[in-house]
Amino acid sequence: MKLYDKVANSLRENIHSGFFVERDKLPSIRQLVAEHNVSISTVQQAYHQLEMEGLIEARPKSGYFVAHKTTTPTLPITSRPAQRPIDVSQWQDVLEVLLAKENVSTTQLQHAMPNMSVPSLNPLLKKMSSLMRHQVALSLPYGNIKGTLQLREQIAKLATNSGCVLHPDDLVITSGCQEGLSVCLRSVTEPGDIVAIESPSFYGSMQAIKTANLKAIEIPTNAENGLSLAALELALEQWPIKAILVTPTANNPMGYSMPEADKKRLYQLAQSYDISIIEDDIYGDISYQSPRPKTIKSFDEDGRVLLCSSFSKTVAPGIRVGWIAPGRYRDKVTHVKYVSSSMCPTLPQLAIADFIETGAYNRHTRKVRLLYKQGRDHLIKCIKQYFPQDTRISFPQGGYVLWVELNKKFDAVKLAAQCKKGDVSIAPGTLFSATGKYRHCMRLNFSEKTEIEREQAIGKLGFYIEQQIEK
Amino acid sequence: MKLYDKVANSLRENIHSGFFVERDKLPSIRQLVAEHNVSISTVQQAYHQLEMEGLIEARPKSGYFVAHKTTTPTLPITSRPAQRPIDVSQWQDVLEVLLAKENVSTTQLQHAMPNMSVPSLNPLLKKMSSLMRHQVALSLPYGNIKGTLQLREQIAKLATNSGCVLHPDDLVITSGCQEGLSVCLRSVTEPGDIVAIESPSFYGSMQAIKTANLKAIEIPTNAENGLSLAALELALEQWPIKAILVTPTANNPMGYSMPEADKKRLYQLAQSYDISIIEDDIYGDISYQSPRPKTIKSFDEDGRVLLCSSFSKTVAPGIRVGWIAPGRYRDKVTHVKYVSSSMCPTLPQLAIADFIETGAYNRHTRKVRLLYKQGRDHLIKCIKQYFPQDTRISFPQGGYVLWVELNKKFDAVKLAAQCKKGDVSIAPGTLFSATGKYRHCMRLNFSEKTEIEREQAIGKLGFYIEQQIEK
Repeated sequence: MKLYDKVANSLRENIHSGFFVERDKLPSIRQLVAEHNVSISTVQQAYHQLEMEGLIEARPKSGYFVAHKTTTPTLPITSRPAQRPIDVSQWQDVLEVLLAKENVSTTQLQHAMPNMSVPSLNPLLKKMSSLMRHQVALSLPYGNIKGTLQLREQIAKLATNSGCVLHPDDLVITSGCQEGLSVCLRSVTEPGDIVAIESPSFYGSMQAIKTANLKAIEIPTNAENGLSLAALELALEQWPIKAILVTPTANNPMGYSMPEADKKRLYQLAQSYDISIIEDDIYGDISYQSPRPKTIKSFDEDGRVLLCSSFSKTVAPGIRVGWIAPGRYRDKVTHVKYVSSSMCPTLPQLAIADFIETGAYNRHTRKVRLLYKQGRDHLIKCIKQYFPQDTRISFPQGGYVLWVELNKKFDAVKLAAQCKKGDVSIAPGTLFSATGKYRHCMRLNFSEKTEIEREQAIGKLGFYIEQQIEK
Repeated sequence: MKLYDKVANSLRENIHSGFFVERDKLPSIRQLVAEHNVSISTVQQAYHQLEMEGLIEARPKSGYFVAHKTTTPTLPITSRPAQRPIDVSQWQDVLEVLLAKENVSTTQLQHAMPNMSVPSLNPLLKKMSSLMRHQVALSLPYGNIKGTLQLREQIAKLATNSGCVLHPDDLVITSGCQEGLSVCLRSVTEPGDIVAIESPSFYGSMQAIKTANLKAIEIPTNAENGLSLAALELALEQWPIKAILVTPTANNPMGYSMPEADKKRLYQLAQSYDISIIEDDIYGDISYQSPRPKTIKSFDEDGRVLLCSSFSKTVAPGIRVGWIAPGRYRDKVTHVKYVSSSMCPTLPQLAIADFIETGAYNRHTRKVRLLYKQGRDHLIKCIKQYFPQDTRISFPQGGYVLWVELNKKFDAVKLAAQCKKGDVSIAPGTLFSATGKYRHCMRLNFSEKTEIEREQAIGKLGFYIEQQIEK
């Protein structure tokens, strides 16, 4: 355990035990240096860590305080899906969301779309434009089947941030993370196989399971630590599960990050049952923690982890640049990727490679991480203000979506329909279950729009929820 | 039958019967007008048709002549693959081709790559550059899941050239034709199903069959008319075939175009056995005939034909814009496409839409059609000069690849290895069989490089073939 972890743990315990309560001033850095006999920077790092967790707040020129409770919500209850393999349904509902035409006036809380109007994206846009002007001929021929080498080199460097040692040859570029997940699923399974997934989980992965003729087994998660390893182990004992598909860092839709120890334990479980792990790390680089959390892939000793990611959530989805670190499945993954859509266009890859190489990507993710964290705290404040008192809210550790659990009597599918009239869009919880569960839940995006617009939208949602009570 | 068809038929018969022989001058337009009692333009159209077929040649200020035999080669023998469902192999060989790094000095006869240095592509490049400068923000968000409406509108208009009446809503944009074929296969079959394909046929489709866990049954083709309908009917009687995947117009690798009547008959067969047809029309718009041949889709009454195409072969493969007209499988195809790689990037679609709308696409395809036709005739002349006398050569009706069949004692896989030393690349025939047949055959591209370079390359190939005899 690192020194700053020790200091942070002792503070965390004191907060949880109630020794320090809401809005209490915490000891000064100087005091803690003396108390723990550590350096100033160690204490600073410990405070930074707790701040990232939302447990404390820094006030300029005043020091650190226990966070005001508006930011730490009552978390959703651990999910309890049926523990048996099932066929994924819900495609019609997903399609409806995908085809939904929104007015410019709509406050979009439905899609997991990043903020794309931040100035830190400008270097990328400039590079794209410049490549198109000066190297447009590169956009014509077929590119490298595994992706442009320059980009694979940059991604390999980036991966060290999450604890991975990857060689550019270990990477396959894909058309976004969706293609990555689909390709990986088809590479490690045969039709009819069972894949374990978190519940709730991203509808795109579940639909990929469906079209690959696989069955899903939904593993319970809790809003704080993610996948229940105990439940997973029970499922592994009981069913011939072939692979686990997880989004362990800044999860969609819940926002949790699995603790590092759990990630390691998950890997060990996969090892002992000899199954593969498909790790969706698409939000990993916009985790609020710094340095960003390690991936499960970072513990991979025998190549059984297929790490998928893309720049769709950290940069912009329209770029369509994703990647797979397929471990020992490299040959199979290359095959399935070729068959899936041949090679990816070269220029977007070069633009992203430049964005990373110049340091602009790291600057950009640092900026938006803070923006999204503020967005989270603001949205939680609004929900507490406008939604019924027994509403439960997840507390994301990264990304820009959170999960709201209403009292079971509410119907978020109806709510989504009501919302449309009010120019607000939400993603009902049913989309995130293989069988239409979580009807009283919804996922909300907090990346886009201003705080005022978001507060108005949440106000409207609160009004529609009240209407449901009255009926 | 149209009037000009009648005139063309009578001339064709006279040539085939030997009434007119090689280099004979054909009747003047005036003579034929009088003889058939038709208009001048009808006769002109008939001559144009025969010229496109390579049967006759126009000589400036001298009139029309029966084509010099150098351009009409001895065709390959009808293929005789085993008539039973098989698992597709050959991926390692395909991968080797895909990963092959070529020097700039290599004369590339291996890949089916269009000529991308023609000035008629300039309007597209300009538009791409301008979109990137003025509408770069459009490249950031998710686009329409079925593709950009502007492009679907233009494709629907274009499709009338091949006899299709399509609505923009009937189209789904894909990441090239490879994604289209993969998506269609997965949309109309279940794992374990049997799909009928032409033999030889495109390795990308066969590998898509393999990764979709399907079995292939290879149907014999002949170099003149394509798929043997008799053989197909026998196979349909004997096996529970679920779909037929064909490239009936300007076929890859043979270059044939199925006669219109055969296409219609193929559709009727599909109807009576209630199976679907996946029609790969990727080379259709650069067929040498004018107007371009009809698609099988143009006969589709009940939506069982899934037409796939892209701008990869007509414009440039790096653009990665393809499309599916999925008929009655629209919903399923939309689902599988979403799962496969989510939406396609918007800007390339807008650029292509503009390229079509301004008429530049039609101008471009008219130009390259002629270029490729000249390339074909020149390559055939070279092969006749440098290859053994018993070499058989296909006579493409469009596109820019042809099929060479050597005497059975030759080994094109070895030849491909020999070639590398001489900076020439070829595609050995084994790639185009599900089980590594056609070892004595090869596919050659004639779109790229100058005539001199191509002649030198064919000269080298001839030399290596001779070396094989001596061993």
